[in-house]
Amino acid sequence: MFFASDNTSGVHPKIMEALVKANEGFAPAYGADKITDALQERLRDLFDAPDARIYPMTSGTGANAALLAAMTPPWGVIYCHETAHIEVDERGAATFFAGGAKLKALPSTDSRLDAVTLAKITTQDRGNTDVHGMPPVAVSMTNLTEFGETYSPAQIAEIASASALPIHMDGARFANAMAKTGATAWEMTRELSTLSLGATKTGAMAAEAAVIFDPALIPAFESHRMRGGHNLSKARFVSAQILAWLEDDLWLELATRANEMAQLLAQGITERGGVLNYSVDGNMIFASLPRATHARAKSKGAAYHLWGADTALAGAPDTSLMARFVTSWSTTQADVDALLKAFDP
Amino acid sequence: MFFASDNTSGVHPKIMEALVKANEGFAPAYGADKITDALQERLRDLFDAPDARIYPMTSGTGANAALLAAMTPPWGVIYCHETAHIEVDERGAATFFAGGAKLKALPSTDSRLDAVTLAKITTQDRGNTDVHGMPPVAVSMTNLTEFGETYSPAQIAEIASASALPIHMDGARFANAMAKTGATAWEMTRELSTLSLGATKTGAMAAEAAVIFDPALIPAFESHRMRGGHNLSKARFVSAQILAWLEDDLWLELATRANEMAQLLAQGITERGGVLNYSVDGNMIFASLPRATHARAKSKGAAYHLWGADTALAGAPDTSLMARFVTSWSTTQADVDALLKAFDP
Amino acid sequence: MFFASDNTSGVHPKIMEALVKANEGFAPAYGADKITDALQERLRDLFDAPDARIYPMTSGTGANAALLAAMTPPWGVIYCHETAHIEVDERGAATFFAGGAKLKALPSTDSRLDAVTLAKITTQDRGNTDVHGMPPVAVSMTNLTEFGETYSPAQIAEIASASALPIHMDGARFANAMAKTGATAWEMTRELSTLSLGATKTGAMAAEAAVIFDPALIPAFESHRMRGGHNLSKARFVSAQILAWLEDDLWLELATRANEMAQLLAQGITERGGVLNYSVDGNMIFASLPRATHARAKSKGAAYHLWGADTALAGAPDTSLMARFVTSWSTTQADVDALLKAFDP
Amino acid sequence: MFFASDNTSGVHPKIMEALVKANEGFAPAYGADKITDALQERLRDLFDAPDARIYPMTSGTGANAALLAAMTPPWGVIYCHETAHIEVDERGAATFFAGGAKLKALPSTDSRLDAVTLAKITTQDRGNTDVHGMPPVAVSMTNLTEFGETYSPAQIAEIASASALPIHMDGARFANAMAKTGATAWEMTRELSTLSLGATKTGAMAAEAAVIFDPALIPAFESHRMRGGHNLSKARFVSAQILAWLEDDLWLELATRANEMAQLLAQGITERGGVLNYSVDGNMIFASLPRATHARAKSKGAAYHLWGADTALAGAPDTSLMARFVTSWSTTQADVDALLKAFDP
Repeated sequence: MFFASDNTSGVHPKIMEALVKANEGFAPAYGADKITDALQERLRDLFDAPDARIYPMTSGTGANAALLAAMTPPWGVIYCHETAHIEVDERGAATFFAGGAKLKALPSTDSRLDAVTLAKITTQDRGNTDVHGMPPVAVSMTNLTEFGETYSPAQIAEIASASALPIHMDGARFANAMAKTGATAWEMTRELSTLSLGATKTGAMAAEAAVIFDPALIPAFESHRMRGGHNLSKARFVSAQILAWLEDDLWLELATRANEMAQLLAQGITERGGVLNYSVDGNMIFASLPRATHARAKSKGAAYHLWGADTALAGAPDTSLMARFVTSWSTTQADVDALLKAFDP
Repeated sequence: MFFASDNTSGVHPKIMEALVKANEGFAPAYGADKITDALQERLRDLFDAPDARIYPMTSGTGANAALLAAMTPPWGVIYCHETAHIEVDERGAATFFAGGAKLKALPSTDSRLDAVTLAKITTQDRGNTDVHGMPPVAVSMTNLTEFGETYSPAQIAEIASASALPIHMDGARFANAMAKTGATAWEMTRELSTLSLGATKTGAMAAEAAVIFDPALIPAFESHRMRGGHNLSKARFVSAQILAWLEDDLWLELATRANEMAQLLAQGITERGGVLNYSVDGNMIFASLPRATHARAKSKGAAYHLWGADTALAGAPDTSLMARFVTSWSTTQADVDALLKAFDP
Repeated sequence: MFFASDNTSGVHPKIMEALVKANEGFAPAYGADKITDALQERLRDLFDAPDARIYPMTSGTGANAALLAAMTPPWGVIYCHETAHIEVDERGAATFFAGGAKLKALPSTDSRLDAVTLAKITTQDRGNTDVHGMPPVAVSMTNLTEFGETYSPAQIAEIASASALPIHMDGARFANAMAKTGATAWEMTRELSTLSLGATKTGAMAAEAAVIFDPALIPAFESHRMRGGHNLSKARFVSAQILAWLEDDLWLELATRANEMAQLLAQGITERGGVLNYSVDGNMIFASLPRATHARAKSKGAAYHLWGADTALAGAPDTSLMARFVTSWSTTQADVDALLKAFDP
Repeated sequence: MFFASDNTSGVHPKIMEALVKANEGFAPAYGADKITDALQERLRDLFDAPDARIYPMTSGTGANAALLAAMTPPWGVIYCHETAHIEVDERGAATFFAGGAKLKALPSTDSRLDAVTLAKITTQDRGNTDVHGMPPVAVSMTNLTEFGETYSPAQIAEIASASALPIHMDGARFANAMAKTGATAWEMTRELSTLSLGATKTGAMAAEAAVIFDPALIPAFESHRMRGGHNLSKARFVSAQILAWLEDDLWLELATRANEMAQLLAQGITERGGVLNYSVDGNMIFASLPRATHARAKSKGAAYHLWGADTALAGAPDTSLMARFVTSWSTTQADVDALLKAFDP
């Protein structure tokens, strides 16, 4: 009953096969190999972006940090949601790579950036025009958000328009967002300057494609990536994972499966009186259940996160506690059933 | 009619005299001189802090940044009010010196940190205990706040207690806060780990004392100060300013005068229908007046800041616009009268 | 004829098998899995270091940078050889992670640190005791060096003693050094505070173990690793590579093979009148050959680096140019023969 | 007998007068005042550089660091002499401000950069063209050097030509170099992109002009200066010092006096058998004298630095120890005579 994170899942057999196949003889290092060339072409086609540059990496945090550092001087402000991974879960990687730039974390009523708030704050910050303030330089969005919600292409465009700033997207669960919205890859990225496209959580071993849509950012990005230690020598093995992941839309197939399991689980939770705290758009469920229910499930071996500061299982049994459940490409209906059963007395 | 900032004022004659007097012959550089020794003793007495170390500096931003950098690793979180100078007006100096640490800017209903909010957020951030999050390490308070309000000793203690964190104080207008509260220097600092004690805005030329109450911070601070370029060679001339400023409580006398002028001005503004937006505790007034009133005063040469993004004087004449007025030790009643008169048709 | 670098080689079949085997079901992320536990135990045994902590990573640059950053404040000096990878080939990663600390690059008559020079410089730098200078904090050694030479355990001890500083070792080709010296892993590491143990160049896909012998460094290292983007989620797949690599001394077997191929190649080069510029201790050969010989080999498809600024193949055919040849675990005698043949007219 | 540094001297009376005179009423802060405007014009005239921008600062280290940071990305290499202040005496300020850029410190047979060495190393570093290396971006020269030697305009041009890189000059003792060479300010600066023009050591209280000859550097410099805490509010008092210092060539008069005292002292030292270790071009003397001679002078209260690691006064009395003696604008012939007398038995 592994619902703690999609990163506890393994590697899809087709991706493993691709690794074995990539292991033939010698190949130039640092991305000068043919597999990386093929990935480059494949992603340019997918995004309909002939000038895009793609860099195979093994770390989503590394990709986010190097991309953002390329988009800001050390004194710029990058806006993100207060729940963003770069704000909450990367121990300051983005501001470290960017030499002390500021992440300004904005609240909203859900887990998405609110265009009105963003417009108001960026306008206000632009008013502080002299050298004492920090100028607005970029917005970072997360799609799927950290609380499992999607931005549609229209919502992305709204944020771009409201801020009038270049957009970075953390796409650690981009496939899940694609699967939900049904939009094309081009529709989902046409407003972006950069994208961190994560395959790891959706069936790869360790593979993220840093995608740069704005060629002006390339030189700085390559420097930040290199000095961040993210220019891997045997890059062909990273590229091979992503290529196999895209082949025959495997990525969407795996994301769809995870999303479906999440729907099943969400339904089971609500049937048991649980309350969903966010829309279940992808493969993440945030739901409140009684403390006693959690205690029961945990005692039967269910693995998932309880959220927030007060997550002690001892206490009033009927107090509600929010939990996070994450499904993955390898979650089965049996897994879901087992978890639901574990909630029951 | 200079009400734009207290840093547009000059140097008090007694401080200028002290500079002339300090200019006798040779003296060891970098604070090894006798005047700096005397300042050290004077401030230890004032704060009743025998272990405190004092460093003469010329920059409040430099003092804040080097002190805060000594209080946090590059991955720590420092909490401050969303209007704090370190957050809004120092182009990221604190996070630059601290190697990418985070300033978390908190809102409240006035310009002071709210103990309840602070307690809630620090508790929540402590819940994110593993290596992905950034640990809470310090709180930075500003007294007088950037909007002219004071913290009393009890309020300082409340913040220290609510956060259970070491406290840094930005005291760019500390004298004004002292003058208002009537508390002793010891009462105003007993909860602090560090203080940036500013004399520049209250009659000095360029003089800030970085005060370290927690001796464990000394080695890191000295390194940050040095590599920040803030270890001045002819330090005696900075120390001499601060010593003269403290002599016979000149600092409190000058701050009291500035505070009184602010009261006069505030009264005149309210008599003219202006609305005070914050308590006028010290030498800063934030008040809303009709756009037409501002246009009139500006056309007569009054210098002060209009606040926020929409500060265009063209537009509906009766729309209210907030302005900031700052009095100083050298502001006279005639200056106040002249400004008030400038508001009138 | 791939002799450009050992990172152009592929993955050893046993390591690939281990990846496939590690891919069973779910496992906790971020190194909390059983394979990483087993690696931890295996390396503690190997180094006879019960308190050591091991972190699976995919980047040698990342491991070096995070380890060194844990060993120095932002104002410390780390000594290394002027040819060290951290000095020459990592675009400043170490000083970036360490917040602006200094790498002091020392010359010598070969590619190893010279104990006399090191003793002299560190003594001199210690003499600059006040806050203006930067204090000596660590030494970084590379074994195998970047020019293919080894340090024996006695030579490592000599450097440690001469500097009286903690030692970091860049072990990107540590296995080749082990194979050459015949010393035990304990003998080769007993003087070290930290080690970056590289498996990638010797048969793995992307796997480096950051090893910390001094437990005091753990908290800072974990923070630097995290914010550097090097705390990978599916860590089991990195640990599995290293475990398989160590199993039955596969690492030494592979390194020995590469070293032997280097000996064969060196012999062939000298037989053809080439001059060896450094001792061939491991799998790297630096040799000077006539420009015409290089032109011939290159025209036949041989891949290897010409060294230094003037490496144009056009020019006087009998001018000598230094080249770098690197063998790997997968280099065969046929590969060596083919290269040697390519030199011949 | 203060010969430890020129920063132990006081403030010239004319500069003190200028401070008193600048203290009239209110003035706009942060350099928007009329005195700063006048300084701007004065320096543009002096350097015959109509596009130059001048920034009054109180710290030479701060000026150097902010100027250099504006000239390099975080991954660039700045070349300097191994004795440069930025390399040896600023605790890494330049690399801190520049986000981890590298200072490459070059040796020579004196204290000046050697054009041949510089040409060789920059050519070599340019050969490492890909993303792994760090690209050459600038040269930093010091005039007067840290060991009291000058660069003539021709020598400056030679360095600029040999490196083909933009030049920064640390001019902490620029006046002394001017006085020695007799060249015009234009001749001494026509090759420069930036200059840190120090007045503090030559009669000011705390005043350095950061001069930018290449306007493209202005935006980055202003940001670095601000976030370094070096944008002082009451800037008029810094500008006033520099203006007075330039008035009627006071700066050259004071430097000439210091240089003359150095000549006197050097002559006395050689007459006593001391050996001069560097040319005495300005106000600094490096001379070797017997240990017993130093012991005698020190016991009589002479203040100056002994150089290097072994400076213990106990030991063989006839061993030679190098010392540094610095004269200043306020050093008198009586001071020199007193020191010489102190050497004698």
